[in-house]
Amino acid sequence: MSRKWVYFFANGKAEGTAQMKDLLGGKGANLAEMTNIGVPVPPGFTISTEVCKYYYDNNRSYPADLKEQVESLIKELEKVTGKGFGDPKNPLLVSVRSGAAISMPGMMDTILNLGLNDETVKGLVKLTNNERFAYDAYRRFLQMFGDTALGIPHSDFENALSEMKAKKGVKLDTELDADDLKKLVDIYKGIYEKYGKEFPQDVYKQLWGAIEAVIWSWMSERAIKYREINGIKEGQLLGTAVSVVTMVFGNMGDDSGTGVCFTRDPNTGEKVHYGEFLPNAQGEDVVAGIRTPYPLEKMKDMLPSAYDELINIMDRLEAYFKDMQDIEFTVERGTLYILQTRNAKRTSQAAIRIAVDMVAEGLIDKKTAVLRVQPSDIERVLHPKFDDKERKNAKVIAKGLPAAPGAATGKVYFEAHKAEKMVEAGEKVLLVRPETSPEDVGGMNAAEGILTARGGMTSHAAVVARGLGKPAVVGAEGIFVSEEEGYLKAGDVVVREGEWLSIDGTTGEVFLGKITAVKPTGLEGPVAELLKWADEFRKLGVRANADVPRDAKVAREFGAEGIGLCRTEHMFFEADRIPKVRRMIVARNKEEREAALEELLPLQKEDFKGLFREMKGYPVTIRLIDPPLHEFLPNDEEQMTEVTKQTGATIEELKNVVAQLHELNPMLGHRGVRLVVTYPEIAVMQTKAIILAAIELKSEGINVMPEIMIPLVGHVNELKYVKKLVMETADALMKEYGVDVKYYVGTMIEVPRAAVTADQIAQEADFFSFGTNDLTQMTFGFSRDDVGKFLPEYFAKGILEDDPFKHVDTEGVGQLVKMASDKGKAVKADLKCGVCGEHGGDPESIMFFATTKLDYVSASPYRIPVARLAAAQASIKYRS
Amino acid sequence: MSRKWVYFFANGKAEGTAQMKDLLGGKGANLAEMTNIGVPVPPGFTISTEVCKYYYDNNRSYPADLKEQVESLIKELEKVTGKGFGDPKNPLLVSVRSGAAISMPGMMDTILNLGLNDETVKGLVKLTNNERFAYDAYRRFLQMFGDTALGIPHSDFENALSEMKAKKGVKLDTELDADDLKKLVDIYKGIYEKYGKEFPQDVYKQLWGAIEAVIWSWMSERAIKYREINGIKEGQLLGTAVSVVTMVFGNMGDDSGTGVCFTRDPNTGEKVHYGEFLPNAQGEDVVAGIRTPYPLEKMKDMLPSAYDELINIMDRLEAYFKDMQDIEFTVERGTLYILQTRNAKRTSQAAIRIAVDMVAEGLIDKKTAVLRVQPSDIERVLHPKFDDKERKNAKVIAKGLPAAPGAATGKVYFEAHKAEKMVEAGEKVLLVRPETSPEDVGGMNAAEGILTARGGMTSHAAVVARGLGKPAVVGAEGIFVSEEEGYLKAGDVVVREGEWLSIDGTTGEVFLGKITAVKPTGLEGPVAELLKWADEFRKLGVRANADVPRDAKVAREFGAEGIGLCRTEHMFFEADRIPKVRRMIVARNKEEREAALEELLPLQKEDFKGLFREMKGYPVTIRLIDPPLHEFLPNDEEQMTEVTKQTGATIEELKNVVAQLHELNPMLGHRGVRLVVTYPEIAVMQTKAIILAAIELKSEGINVMPEIMIPLVGHVNELKYVKKLVMETADALMKEYGVDVKYYVGTMIEVPRAAVTADQIAQEADFFSFGTNDLTQMTFGFSRDDVGKFLPEYFAKGILEDDPFKHVDTEGVGQLVKMASDKGKAVKADLKCGVCGEHGGDPESIMFFATTKLDYVSASPYRIPVARLAAAQASIKYRS
Repeated sequence: MSRKWVYFFANGKAEGTAQMKDLLGGKGANLAEMTNIGVPVPPGFTISTEVCKYYYDNNRSYPADLKEQVESLIKELEKVTGKGFGDPKNPLLVSVRSGAAISMPGMMDTILNLGLNDETVKGLVKLTNNERFAYDAYRRFLQMFGDTALGIPHSDFENALSEMKAKKGVKLDTELDADDLKKLVDIYKGIYEKYGKEFPQDVYKQLWGAIEAVIWSWMSERAIKYREINGIKEGQLLGTAVSVVTMVFGNMGDDSGTGVCFTRDPNTGEKVHYGEFLPNAQGEDVVAGIRTPYPLEKMKDMLPSAYDELINIMDRLEAYFKDMQDIEFTVERGTLYILQTRNAKRTSQAAIRIAVDMVAEGLIDKKTAVLRVQPSDIERVLHPKFDDKERKNAKVIAKGLPAAPGAATGKVYFEAHKAEKMVEAGEKVLLVRPETSPEDVGGMNAAEGILTARGGMTSHAAVVARGLGKPAVVGAEGIFVSEEEGYLKAGDVVVREGEWLSIDGTTGEVFLGKITAVKPTGLEGPVAELLKWADEFRKLGVRANADVPRDAKVAREFGAEGIGLCRTEHMFFEADRIPKVRRMIVARNKEEREAALEELLPLQKEDFKGLFREMKGYPVTIRLIDPPLHEFLPNDEEQMTEVTKQTGATIEELKNVVAQLHELNPMLGHRGVRLVVTYPEIAVMQTKAIILAAIELKSEGINVMPEIMIPLVGHVNELKYVKKLVMETADALMKEYGVDVKYYVGTMIEVPRAAVTADQIAQEADFFSFGTNDLTQMTFGFSRDDVGKFLPEYFAKGILEDDPFKHVDTEGVGQLVKMASDKGKAVKADLKCGVCGEHGGDPESIMFFATTKLDYVSASPYRIPVARLAAAQASIKYRS
Repeated sequence: MSRKWVYFFANGKAEGTAQMKDLLGGKGANLAEMTNIGVPVPPGFTISTEVCKYYYDNNRSYPADLKEQVESLIKELEKVTGKGFGDPKNPLLVSVRSGAAISMPGMMDTILNLGLNDETVKGLVKLTNNERFAYDAYRRFLQMFGDTALGIPHSDFENALSEMKAKKGVKLDTELDADDLKKLVDIYKGIYEKYGKEFPQDVYKQLWGAIEAVIWSWMSERAIKYREINGIKEGQLLGTAVSVVTMVFGNMGDDSGTGVCFTRDPNTGEKVHYGEFLPNAQGEDVVAGIRTPYPLEKMKDMLPSAYDELINIMDRLEAYFKDMQDIEFTVERGTLYILQTRNAKRTSQAAIRIAVDMVAEGLIDKKTAVLRVQPSDIERVLHPKFDDKERKNAKVIAKGLPAAPGAATGKVYFEAHKAEKMVEAGEKVLLVRPETSPEDVGGMNAAEGILTARGGMTSHAAVVARGLGKPAVVGAEGIFVSEEEGYLKAGDVVVREGEWLSIDGTTGEVFLGKITAVKPTGLEGPVAELLKWADEFRKLGVRANADVPRDAKVAREFGAEGIGLCRTEHMFFEADRIPKVRRMIVARNKEEREAALEELLPLQKEDFKGLFREMKGYPVTIRLIDPPLHEFLPNDEEQMTEVTKQTGATIEELKNVVAQLHELNPMLGHRGVRLVVTYPEIAVMQTKAIILAAIELKSEGINVMPEIMIPLVGHVNELKYVKKLVMETADALMKEYGVDVKYYVGTMIEVPRAAVTADQIAQEADFFSFGTNDLTQMTFGFSRDDVGKFLPEYFAKGILEDDPFKHVDTEGVGQLVKMASDKGKAVKADLKCGVCGEHGGDPESIMFFATTKLDYVSASPYRIPVARLAAAQASIKYRS
């Protein structure tokens, strides 16, 4: 009752298939599959994973009949190749590789050229007519076998090689000649002796040694650790398979050669045969860079029949695997061998084009196309990028957080006002600040990009830059910015005002000097097509965080289905408003405050009309005033004097107000709904502006759907109190004008207590919008402005893997989101739930949100396309 | 098939019992019960609550047979009293009162003297020989009846009375004579006419009018609102009962009188008959204060037989109700009537003594005694209190939060150092500060008490004062403190350095001048006895928050069963350490930091030895360093110069360190476990100090149980990282010294994420200790330093009822505590869980914690006795 342990493949017929990964490992199954579909793979066989399991289950011994099965397949190999294993005249050489069902980089390297010994190497010399090549192959085999099968330190061989090169006065391995390599073979054998090991001249001993090395590597510390880290459970895999494959050589003369090819252009995605070819060469020659390969077309002239076969195989492989392939091939004496095929890496632009083209070609369906493109691909094609070559040559002087994607280059300015002026004067400007504050928004908008020394992924600079669609690098801790003296310093490099600097907001790199930035393609062609399909699959809505009509317009163009967050206070910073806002803050009593608010009312009303007009009946969620009032007041004497003029307050009164507004922890202070509880008149004014805007537009026949949102609610009574205020105000206006406006009142869920008591809060709310920035701050107890002091250490020590402000923390913050939406919808089934924190535009976070009961995510306008794709992928994966 | 609607009581026999509250209301059932046990209650009857229900169920009509039943009982009343209802010669007068099964202050007032009219009033004059009394009774009845039965505004009567007094040029009602009152009766009748109402001379019309008024009051807006607020559901009560009781008069001659008595001394609790008596008088005469009552003993001479009966009844009532009674009585022509008995109010001292005495007397059991004393009683007797009279006469100039109980009086000083010096010079000092910081601790300890202008219940001043057992009032927002100029201002009052001021930390009041403070009794006698019983019932452990041996000693004396929180950083502020701590902070590299830590090690070790010695084998939970490092550095130039001397750093370096340590939200910044992740050497030093202390004491034969606690953990990996560090350090030391110390490693749960992921964290923790101060801050998003700006408005608007820093927020924060202990114990059944936040000493919070799976609470030493009682009560209520 013999059992089958080994699976043969050769000449278009294999005992295995692609489906037998568990048994043959990924590599073995793939070799079998390619063989079966007629791709000329060098013949070989795979020892199944069951052998590995048997080995460890049986006190490290092999099944009794394994030896016979393996050795009989070596005979088969000799038959199909016409070569002899250990035959000096025409030696059969093989490679031995490991391979489990799941790819595991923690395991053994490949052993190549097995079958070489003092005799067969001579045969190889004759066959290839290339003594140097043969001895190089031999010494490499000695090294790999000694290291992996016998445990001789790798470094011993490396040192010997270095010494030899030093003695010869050369730098590259390739500069050693055949004699040098022959000597090296002897030296290597000496190393074996030094460790009391013997190099087996018997090729079967070589083979069994290599097989055992592969099986041992399954239980190596490295491999065990790898499985642990990647959550591969004990017993989930049988073990590793061992593939033994005939070696082929592309350097056997002018009828041989080697190359790499792609089934499409990996840069543009164009459907052309693309690749490189080098005649009479081994793959290593290409890697070593001593010979420049030809474009693939050249092969047509040199090896026409192999070329034709290759083209044919390329097409078949792509059609078979239904994706663009990256193929390694070798031609040995006119015979084409495919050594490997895999899905090809490609640029973002190519990824999108290929996915769309393949649908048109009927190769894949829309769903597959949508799943195949990475959200980051969308991001990349919609933002400027640097010219590759210029970028490669540029000096990186610092690295920060990649806060807003895209490449930007400009002359540095350190003050927002100055930056604005220089842009007006026609300069390209990069705004560099220690950190930004609301007064800098004008300058940020004018600049090509923004760089800050401090702040995290949700700092003011980061949030505003993403909103504006400007590339930004923030929290570049390595740089020092002197506003006063107008320079920045990074290590030894000093960059002064007006000098060129470049930043890559996709990677966080800061480059010295100017680099040409290539404009993005925009939302058209294949990208637009792909996103249209994404929308077909998407079950999660996508809205925009937008404060002004301009942003709302961009958002609509990018496909937003409403506004998920309008931060009303952002409007307060405009030049015509800030004096009024300040008058409101320094008001000595309610009457003065109401007078100031009365002046703000018509301005806010026009803001909302602008937003409603753009959104044409889509829902617009307007958050009532949120930030602490001190954010609207300056701190330095000079600006304070300016404010006294704006407000009529004395400098003493003003200082008094600033002192009174000072807080030890403003993040946890007098802001959000707490402001409205103390100053209900602010909420009244904002409600009036919203409802009046709606009433006026309705009379123009424009549909509106305002959602009034109360921030920072932690207790249902807060919402109750403000809701009453809002409804009384709204209802009175509707009565006065005789117009009915359908409006909703809801709340942010951003305080942990709100999540815990969401069932109570839901009774008063029409909708929930998760403010995951603040929720992350409070759930972790992390001030986003201060985490820079310890988070880097957290990453370095492996305590946290990801920045929780970038990707939502699924185990903590995410659980609160889930708890709250579950509790809320249990109380009120039609409670609309969305996310308006920065995570709403992060694909990884969107994947998590799709597993909850959320209805939509809201992202900054320039992230809408990314969010649409991510949401579609999430819906396909989790909600189909 | 007639039904019984009315229940009679008279002469030792009643148709109702104490158990019939649902039917007769609390008042009616009590009158019936007293009658049944032979207490001479004035006869009367109660119309059952079913009548009220019938009335509202039947379109506001009475049962057909009610009239007959009521009127027949009036006849009965006439029979037993020998008086006639409406009989001018000997008029039967009655009171009519409402009363539901649950006491409801929202309902109707009593109508007294019903049965008076123009004729019967003359009879009353003759009977009492007191025209003034009779007409005063009549005009009062007119007023009560007009107001409650006919809806005539109360103010009309009051205005008429005021006018009369003005005309006569007198101030008190009692200064009006009989003629004035006769005129007032006429004027009152005019008011009836003005509103188109007629005062019924027919006494039966009076009676039915009063009954209807009571039944109507059940559905008054006031009563409905009251039931709503107090969660009394519709249908839970049938309605109100109506009690009709014969009026008795103590002013019918020298054989009459009135008084109030207590079955024990309500001030001391001594078991004596105690009370006051006034012959030939009505209760109102006592209230009006025109005649001074005699001590109860006087009655023995004046009305010996009534006195003997009263003493007998007092004893019987106390024995019957098993609690000290407060009894109102009237003697009418030699006959004693008990008008009311209820559980008497008493001082805290009396409450404790009575509870303990009654157990000795066999009147109640220990459990009842433990439940009967309020935790606040314990608090009061253990702290100094002001002399009552002096206090009453003192001027309150401000009110703050009652942060630490007890009374304190002293000369005010505004600087901690100065305060210390003045105490050394023999002064009694009250330390007054805008707010306190760690440098003030010396002065706080020296002072009699502490007053601050800013800060909440968990501010530094409040926490430290409670720890020191010093009375404190904090956050007295009305006062302004000028440190520099040495004065405080409250309204118009200015108090300068060296002037006397007094504070009551139990009420939050601030008094001008000196008030004698009476020393507390201490933990002995009845208090000690009661707490011993409390410990017998208590299932929740009580530990102490204590940082130094002195506190630990107090804690043990007060009955703590271990230390639940030792804040190691508090030791860092001592004069001999702070320079070393600062050297550690300004260290330029790890080596310098380790050198500074090396110097701190022996000092910390001695600290821990001191604590372990006091706690004699009880667990001692030691929290590793928690606060942000900037708290250890000064901000002003002068002190900085001092620090440069201490540390060897230049002023520039120091300023740089201060700038680097600056945080926008220090509460959510670089502190707790985050410090240890960046500076592991601090944790190593602290662990060494703990383990070495334990090793050295073990060699002295002293048992130790250290629990090493990691603060601010939000992610299991943080705990994992530090635990490894702690264990490696501890294990190395134990190996080195060959001594085995059993120690535990656990974590604070104070970050919401820790509560949410408690199942993960429990896998690494030996114990959880809930830091409910920080957990409250982060769950609400309330900075305890900044809530003063908006919380008052929250209370005023009814958004929050309680300060969540004082009483744990059971619906939000409490749910996280519950979730975390449930999740933690599900993973690890023997996970020890406690609370070490300030809520651990708050009785109301302890009641909540007893409903969760917590094992113990930890409180500041002076709150231990309170916590022991509260925990016992909670255990009896929720875990028996």
